[in-house]
Amino acid sequence: MAPAPPHPALPRLTLVLGGARSGKSRHAEALVTALPPPWTYVATAQPFDAEMTDRIAQHKARRAEGWRTLETTHDLAGLVRTSGDSDTPMLIDCLTLWLSNVMLADMDVPARCAELIDALGSAHGPIVAVSNEVGLGIVPDNALARAFRDAQGRLNQNVAALADRVILMAAGLPLTLK
Amino acid sequence: MAPAPPHPALPRLTLVLGGARSGKSRHAEALVTALPPPWTYVATAQPFDAEMTDRIAQHKARRAEGWRTLETTHDLAGLVRTSGDSDTPMLIDCLTLWLSNVMLADMDVPARCAELIDALGSAHGPIVAVSNEVGLGIVPDNALARAFRDAQGRLNQNVAALADRVILMAAGLPLTLK
Amino acid sequence: MAPAPPHPALPRLTLVLGGARSGKSRHAEALVTALPPPWTYVATAQPFDAEMTDRIAQHKARRAEGWRTLETTHDLAGLVRTSGDSDTPMLIDCLTLWLSNVMLADMDVPARCAELIDALGSAHGPIVAVSNEVGLGIVPDNALARAFRDAQGRLNQNVAALADRVILMAAGLPLTLK
Repeated sequence: MAPAPPHPALPRLTLVLGGARSGKSRHAEALVTALPPPWTYVATAQPFDAEMTDRIAQHKARRAEGWRTLETTHDLAGLVRTSGDSDTPMLIDCLTLWLSNVMLADMDVPARCAELIDALGSAHGPIVAVSNEVGLGIVPDNALARAFRDAQGRLNQNVAALADRVILMAAGLPLTLK
Repeated sequence: MAPAPPHPALPRLTLVLGGARSGKSRHAEALVTALPPPWTYVATAQPFDAEMTDRIAQHKARRAEGWRTLETTHDLAGLVRTSGDSDTPMLIDCLTLWLSNVMLADMDVPARCAELIDALGSAHGPIVAVSNEVGLGIVPDNALARAFRDAQGRLNQNVAALADRVILMAAGLPLTLK
Repeated sequence: MAPAPPHPALPRLTLVLGGARSGKSRHAEALVTALPPPWTYVATAQPFDAEMTDRIAQHKARRAEGWRTLETTHDLAGLVRTSGDSDTPMLIDCLTLWLSNVMLADMDVPARCAELIDALGSAHGPIVAVSNEVGLGIVPDNALARAFRDAQGRLNQNVAALADRVILMAAGLPLTLK
């Protein structure tokens, strides 16, 4: 459904930002697969319940041949450092699940985010990173949710500052922010 | 308050998307009433409590002469099929309340959404449909709210793919996505 | 991090709208400090808990010399009326905390908002007002949160209608709505 990207050539780093069910993953995949295969898919989801297992299966079913899937739940920076120096286009889906994994594991969030930014800054690319915008609702009741949306907002700002192109998705349609 | 639409002529299908109190209904009404009357207003709200009754009354008070109001809480596809073949411009306000009615009645959501998409695809138009963007906050705690925002996001993507024009409202101002 | 504003000259009234951690305050400060000092910073936050005290301290630490800080928790209209007639650029950070203070104090919200709109309409400027967009998540469970997002949405619409320029921030990047 996502419209074909206007310029098939991808810059070094693209951030595809959007809400839940906004067509982020689909658009990011379309950007990557406009280049010739192979492509690397970096999955950060943890299949910890039936809902998430189902969602992962749907994502996998949609992806065509030509993808190599790498899974990482916490050490995304390490994976980007070791795999991000080839010419193979890489899709990271998504920063939000990774950040959620890091917070739930009680890791040092600012340090891990800084490490990821550093790895993304040094990677060869092209990389397309998917992330959620979560700050446009009412202030959440509980402190963990507030801490999460603060951390997510800061991470999005830092990745956006580093990115060559930033796209905001709404209803499956891309809006170029940068 | 909504600025006059740049092109008074409406395409076959327009989606006006936005958050709560973003000026969606007002803008959609301005798009429709830029054409000569009569106009059809399709109301999907159920006045199940005082808050909603009050909101419906406010919407009605704002609408001028020239409107014919049709009410449907669940069979929006049927209404679009039977009324959508005239030349009378139709405003559907809104898809979010309709979807909420369908979910609360425990109907088959994907089937009903497919039926609606089919009806919108066959309608003569012009139709302006209003819908909420609900996916830009933190993940909701309860599963029903998560299911709702998933269904709403999918419906918005499908209507947007079908629409000739998609507008995102923020603070009463329109942003053209398509 | 916020990109330098394209036109350093500020119009009479600018609204910088965005989600939590979207870079609103930083961008608004960059707009104001593109003009020569002095600048007036209007703080509306109440340091009622450790989280907010910490956030206020972070904001203060980021601001350079040249700022005069005025604090008001409830009478923002009065402050704008008495201070808004000088040539000194004024940054109001933010309307959302002010509105929250007014609602928690059980004041007459529509009357207070009308009074603020009136004061902003008569002010000399340039004024940059920061506000949150809070209506793009799922409908909140509790009535107070729903009332707040309705009031915030209406206030944003009214300030946006009055403003010469309206900017929506996402991931630290500005999108011009008006």
